[in-house]
Amino acid sequence: MAPINETFEYDLVVIGGGSGGLACAKEAVGHGAKVAVLDFVKPSPRGTKWGLGGTCVNVGCIPKKLMHQASILGEGIHEAQAYGWNVSPEQATINWPALVEAVQNHIKSVNWVTRVDLRDKKVEYVNGMGYFKDAHNVVAVLKNGTERVLNTKHVVIAVGGRPRYPHIPGALEYGITSDDIFSMPTPPGKTVVVGAGYIGLECAGFLKGFGYDVTVMVRSIVLRGFDQQMADIVSSAMVEKGINFLHKTVPTSVEKNSEGRLVVKYRNAEGQEGAEECDTVLFAIGRTALTEDLKLENADVKYNDDNKKIPVNEREETNVDGIYAVGDVLDGRPELTPVAILAGRLLARRLLASGTDLMDYSDVATTVFTPLEYGCVGMSEETAVKEFGEENVEVFHAYYKPTEFFIPQKSVRYCYLKSVALREGDQKVVGLHYVGPVAGEVIQGFAAAVKSGLTMKILMNTVGIHPTTAEEFTRLNITKRSGVDPTPATCCS
Amino acid sequence: MAPINETFEYDLVVIGGGSGGLACAKEAVGHGAKVAVLDFVKPSPRGTKWGLGGTCVNVGCIPKKLMHQASILGEGIHEAQAYGWNVSPEQATINWPALVEAVQNHIKSVNWVTRVDLRDKKVEYVNGMGYFKDAHNVVAVLKNGTERVLNTKHVVIAVGGRPRYPHIPGALEYGITSDDIFSMPTPPGKTVVVGAGYIGLECAGFLKGFGYDVTVMVRSIVLRGFDQQMADIVSSAMVEKGINFLHKTVPTSVEKNSEGRLVVKYRNAEGQEGAEECDTVLFAIGRTALTEDLKLENADVKYNDDNKKIPVNEREETNVDGIYAVGDVLDGRPELTPVAILAGRLLARRLLASGTDLMDYSDVATTVFTPLEYGCVGMSEETAVKEFGEENVEVFHAYYKPTEFFIPQKSVRYCYLKSVALREGDQKVVGLHYVGPVAGEVIQGFAAAVKSGLTMKILMNTVGIHPTTAEEFTRLNITKRSGVDPTPATCCS
Repeated sequence: MAPINETFEYDLVVIGGGSGGLACAKEAVGHGAKVAVLDFVKPSPRGTKWGLGGTCVNVGCIPKKLMHQASILGEGIHEAQAYGWNVSPEQATINWPALVEAVQNHIKSVNWVTRVDLRDKKVEYVNGMGYFKDAHNVVAVLKNGTERVLNTKHVVIAVGGRPRYPHIPGALEYGITSDDIFSMPTPPGKTVVVGAGYIGLECAGFLKGFGYDVTVMVRSIVLRGFDQQMADIVSSAMVEKGINFLHKTVPTSVEKNSEGRLVVKYRNAEGQEGAEECDTVLFAIGRTALTEDLKLENADVKYNDDNKKIPVNEREETNVDGIYAVGDVLDGRPELTPVAILAGRLLARRLLASGTDLMDYSDVATTVFTPLEYGCVGMSEETAVKEFGEENVEVFHAYYKPTEFFIPQKSVRYCYLKSVALREGDQKVVGLHYVGPVAGEVIQGFAAAVKSGLTMKILMNTVGIHPTTAEEFTRLNITKRSGVDPTPATCCS
Repeated sequence: MAPINETFEYDLVVIGGGSGGLACAKEAVGHGAKVAVLDFVKPSPRGTKWGLGGTCVNVGCIPKKLMHQASILGEGIHEAQAYGWNVSPEQATINWPALVEAVQNHIKSVNWVTRVDLRDKKVEYVNGMGYFKDAHNVVAVLKNGTERVLNTKHVVIAVGGRPRYPHIPGALEYGITSDDIFSMPTPPGKTVVVGAGYIGLECAGFLKGFGYDVTVMVRSIVLRGFDQQMADIVSSAMVEKGINFLHKTVPTSVEKNSEGRLVVKYRNAEGQEGAEECDTVLFAIGRTALTEDLKLENADVKYNDDNKKIPVNEREETNVDGIYAVGDVLDGRPELTPVAILAGRLLARRLLASGTDLMDYSDVATTVFTPLEYGCVGMSEETAVKEFGEENVEVFHAYYKPTEFFIPQKSVRYCYLKSVALREGDQKVVGLHYVGPVAGEVIQGFAAAVKSGLTMKILMNTVGIHPTTAEEFTRLNITKRSGVDPTPATCCS
């Protein structure tokens, strides 16, 4: 295959074979471009490695969702008994190595399919660590240490990020991260999760679902960046499940005691100190962009000194002509697989075809799986109030009782949803928030609705699908401002 | 409480205490009206009776969804094992009486809550069978046979319908319907389901899920009124699960043999005859409106002679001033609980408050639970083609592979979705169709999107929530017209 632009060896070199980079590369070859993707995974401090496909496939969404599903299925055994199935939930325990094997087998099959897909589409795959020689020459450091220079018109940086470790004694030596948990050969046992962002909470959630004791250490707030009323509901539901939360607390060291167990020492905001003995310490305190090894200075690409992320404009252009970035490496953009995919695809269309559409980073829906799920799209209540003023925002809310929860007597205490709308006219919806079963499936369509200009008037005139939990959005009619009790009476009239 | 209009004893009498009637009555009292609801359940031919709340609560959506859930949870036991849980799915059998008891206990609690809700809201509940003396006087025949006349300004007919029996020997004597299945004290065993509308298929689906042999007898087509490509997918998925379909076949008699089992004799379109021995025969051949006992002639209310249903205008007005109808009793309107509820509520607002909104019967989403679910909103492909012409319709479609299906190796063969759109401009979406897990939860938000004017341009620029199945709608990009293979390659790029 010859490049479209014969001045260069390649039309496009993508550094990073994750969701965004691969989507961009595949779209580009679809428009006739000659494309190479560089991918290389540095082992984690614990030695964990993985294959092609990036964070999502290997140590992110996919294994997370599978462990979430396993956790849900464990709950389901108890529920099945309540519905009349002859099962013995008290004897049902998780076989961690079997679970890990099942998850890893699936990941390996995805790695394989991804590889074949690149071959079929004629995207050149280079298993090498990339760095800039200059703006149009990218060096791939291959496994055997040799270097190969790829001369290219465009470069897309899609290296993503990796979990951070805290600078405390024992962290690197004894701690693991989400890079390691999904392939851990032995059961995690009692686990201390440090960090209460969505990754920390999700790991805490499925581990508890498997029957392990879990403590979550929260430095400041739970689910920063999310609606804080909903974040409180999520953490309250986790507490009800038996997860222990240590608020305003940071770890100070990790040690191994004489019995071979780990001891996490910590200090809280009041200066009180304590220690928690456990089998596993999982750090989920944030992620760092993987820009360090790129030698960005050789191409004069600017990055944010604090978080190592790369700022781009609305066309995903860095400060240097011909160098772009997509995905988690971007400064100030959501770290989400489908965001990276769509941005990568649109970028390729603009660079190599006649595309003009820009990526719209607003109203991106997302879901936290804890395993009670929280899904949302658009603004949090506090953001809306800040943006429009309290007097111009109307919040409709309700508790609800999923039909399926009654027979197994599942707690309905945290089944809650709200719509954040403008107060005037037809009341444009600016944010939707839902805690309950299958939140991701529920919120996706509403995200399309918000993008289509959903108003409360339309929502209230949308006929529900009965009995579902998603229909509760169509039944919303109580405003927070009214002070009326938002707990439900009957189910079907 | 005194009526608003003192010429009459009541402002509103609602005949029928189902979803539509109750919603209408409760809304009306909220606007200060004096309201009575008449409700009375005639036992089914098998002797089944139930309490307040109508079809949905007692013999419809609610018990159906619970049995569907039980069936899903049974599948879940098998899946749990694949995910590493120590369970013995081969030993897990359903305890039918325990299931029925759990379902019935839930229904009784809803009956109770409904009753209390009426009392709290000061809706008068009359446990009597209603008929018209004239347009403003409704007679309630009470349990003890005495009659009570209620003088009222407005009457809302919300009597709903009941399952039909075929006119063949043995049908009434030996057959049951959806009125009976959810409270049947003994296990149904091998079951012949006559009828392939959504009620028949749903019953067939959960019974098979419990391990019973099921045969579905289809007179003409499966899921009449639904998109026929999707209907084929649903029935194919049911065949894959082991459900037997007899196409173009009608029953001719039901007999009991010397061993006490039932024998359904049948004839197909080619004139071939056959017989199927079974334990239960369930008729799901359609429903008849319950207008016979209303003595509509006393008030000169017109109805459709063929199906006994009542035609109304866009304000739910019958041909007689002051007499209205909502719910399943309506001629030519969807027989769905949330439709009845919303119509009833809007009607009350127009009659007794300053409401002006009319019920919008278009783009009503619905879901079939078989137990693989089919959800849809808007037009079927064939309706769109008929309405706009084939050259003006663009259908986007895809098969997809739910992440959770891989580990338990569930069949992905029937996981399919499509969007039926106009071809010009931004391609307005006129119908969405989805077969897969939790279809009701998936489709609800998209129904709000369609009501908000969803286009393919918006849908394709809506960011997915990964990994969900609902996100597959945002990934749609292959048109039927293109002939490109709609099976998926990779999952995350």
